[in-house]
Amino acid sequence: MMGKPDKALPTGWTTSPREALRVTNTGPIAQYDAASTPGYTGDKQAGTAALIERGAHLADLQEMLFANGRSRGHRSVLLVVQGMDTAGKGGIVRHVGGLVDPQGLAITGFGKPTPEELTHDFLWRIHRALPPAGKIGIFDRSHYEDVLPVRVHNLVPERVWSQRYDLITQFEREVVAAGTTVLKVALVVSREKQKQRLIDRLNDPTKYWKFDPSDVEERGFWEDYLEAYQTIFDRTDGDHAPWYLIGADRKWFSRLAVCELLIDALEGLNLGWPAATFDVEVERARVAAL
Amino acid sequence: MMGKPDKALPTGWTTSPREALRVTNTGPIAQYDAASTPGYTGDKQAGTAALIERGAHLADLQEMLFANGRSRGHRSVLLVVQGMDTAGKGGIVRHVGGLVDPQGLAITGFGKPTPEELTHDFLWRIHRALPPAGKIGIFDRSHYEDVLPVRVHNLVPERVWSQRYDLITQFEREVVAAGTTVLKVALVVSREKQKQRLIDRLNDPTKYWKFDPSDVEERGFWEDYLEAYQTIFDRTDGDHAPWYLIGADRKWFSRLAVCELLIDALEGLNLGWPAATFDVEVERARVAAL
Repeated sequence: MMGKPDKALPTGWTTSPREALRVTNTGPIAQYDAASTPGYTGDKQAGTAALIERGAHLADLQEMLFANGRSRGHRSVLLVVQGMDTAGKGGIVRHVGGLVDPQGLAITGFGKPTPEELTHDFLWRIHRALPPAGKIGIFDRSHYEDVLPVRVHNLVPERVWSQRYDLITQFEREVVAAGTTVLKVALVVSREKQKQRLIDRLNDPTKYWKFDPSDVEERGFWEDYLEAYQTIFDRTDGDHAPWYLIGADRKWFSRLAVCELLIDALEGLNLGWPAATFDVEVERARVAAL
Repeated sequence: MMGKPDKALPTGWTTSPREALRVTNTGPIAQYDAASTPGYTGDKQAGTAALIERGAHLADLQEMLFANGRSRGHRSVLLVVQGMDTAGKGGIVRHVGGLVDPQGLAITGFGKPTPEELTHDFLWRIHRALPPAGKIGIFDRSHYEDVLPVRVHNLVPERVWSQRYDLITQFEREVVAAGTTVLKVALVVSREKQKQRLIDRLNDPTKYWKFDPSDVEERGFWEDYLEAYQTIFDRTDGDHAPWYLIGADRKWFSRLAVCELLIDALEGLNLGWPAATFDVEVERARVAAL
């Protein structure tokens, strides 16, 4: 699951992103500095350049995963992205997902459940969206919504949502057992930065579509959300499906951090290029003859 | 459907890509020069630079389409990509699709039909893969496979495949009527270039997975494929769902050409940014108060 422990650190990092950002090391979310860059010493300019350079490496690893998927390999990767409004979930999908071949991605955004989804168990729509072999799945929101707004607003009774932590852990263990490396990132935005980003959206007509008046109401439940997030970390973090806490006030950092975590996950698969399933010399001769 | 006729041409083009590459203007595929760059005067360096610059414009248009999809807009775009082996279909998906936010793409690769797919009408799996509102769908192969290898190798009787041209036209008219702009590109590779690319794959262990011995056999049916393609153009091209013939010996050109055709399709939607569905001043005050 984990990469090799003695692997060289990426440039600019003093601690591996996997160690520096793991929720078991960052302390509680309520005290987290959303502008911090744990483990990373570079500034915005260095981090932006690093994303391009490391993105090329990520693209190579993704192609190797894809090649294995085409060659009866059974491995895949699932990146779960959670975070409060304006934390930049969509930006992660666009700017980190955008670093690799889009054919190799299986992106799913989970909104309010549809009437059909509501007739099923809360994990039903999640199962259907899992990445097939060879792909990197990205969930923009996920089954964790069922213990976040659902819990904060009592959309189901406590006896229902309180069982979900164990159900989620069991589900994720099954997913991992089937060959999928799971990593989960929670993007942390500060109250002040969120306010600024909401105002930015209201000052730019090309961003009106991103604004939802209910986002303002959700700000009134800030402490409840922090508590709900902390419970998630306490109940569903594990080496099989680790949670990473990433400050999102500096978008360049959150993107670089997620890129590094994906690289680490892909390197941890220890894949190689698939061997030829044909006789190379014979095929060379056949092509040359035509 | 079509963009404004008096629109300025993109830099380097003497004829709009939509005119220069349309099958009704290019002549038959059997005489097509796969290394030609109809309508475009730039060289590889200029074309590569243009792809980056125009790609940023494509990304803006894609975001606007996506925003409209989120705001009850019903428009979408479908790009169908066909071409013989090594023509670079995957490269189009990667390098043109890769120019935009991957969240806005709905990419489907159609391989040999599964047993379940074979129990249904040939358009069943196609319907299911159509892009939802706000997205750009990309088909890497498509329903046209059912009149290409299926016809060349007589996988179904002629009385079955010969009916499919009309069924496809009827299907595509329905798709267009539902709000989807359809454009279809056929990538044309020369026999010599295909040979070179197959040999390249056999000389590079990181590319073995892209090689399929059956590709060599398919080279023996070259003339049959040209005839099958020509029939497709003759029977299924129309202003509602035009076919474009794009030389693929120069990959930089085929990518630029597809990018320009997508830009043209998106500009033809004449979209704007969605209006606010809330009172902007009221919301500004609410955010400021929290």
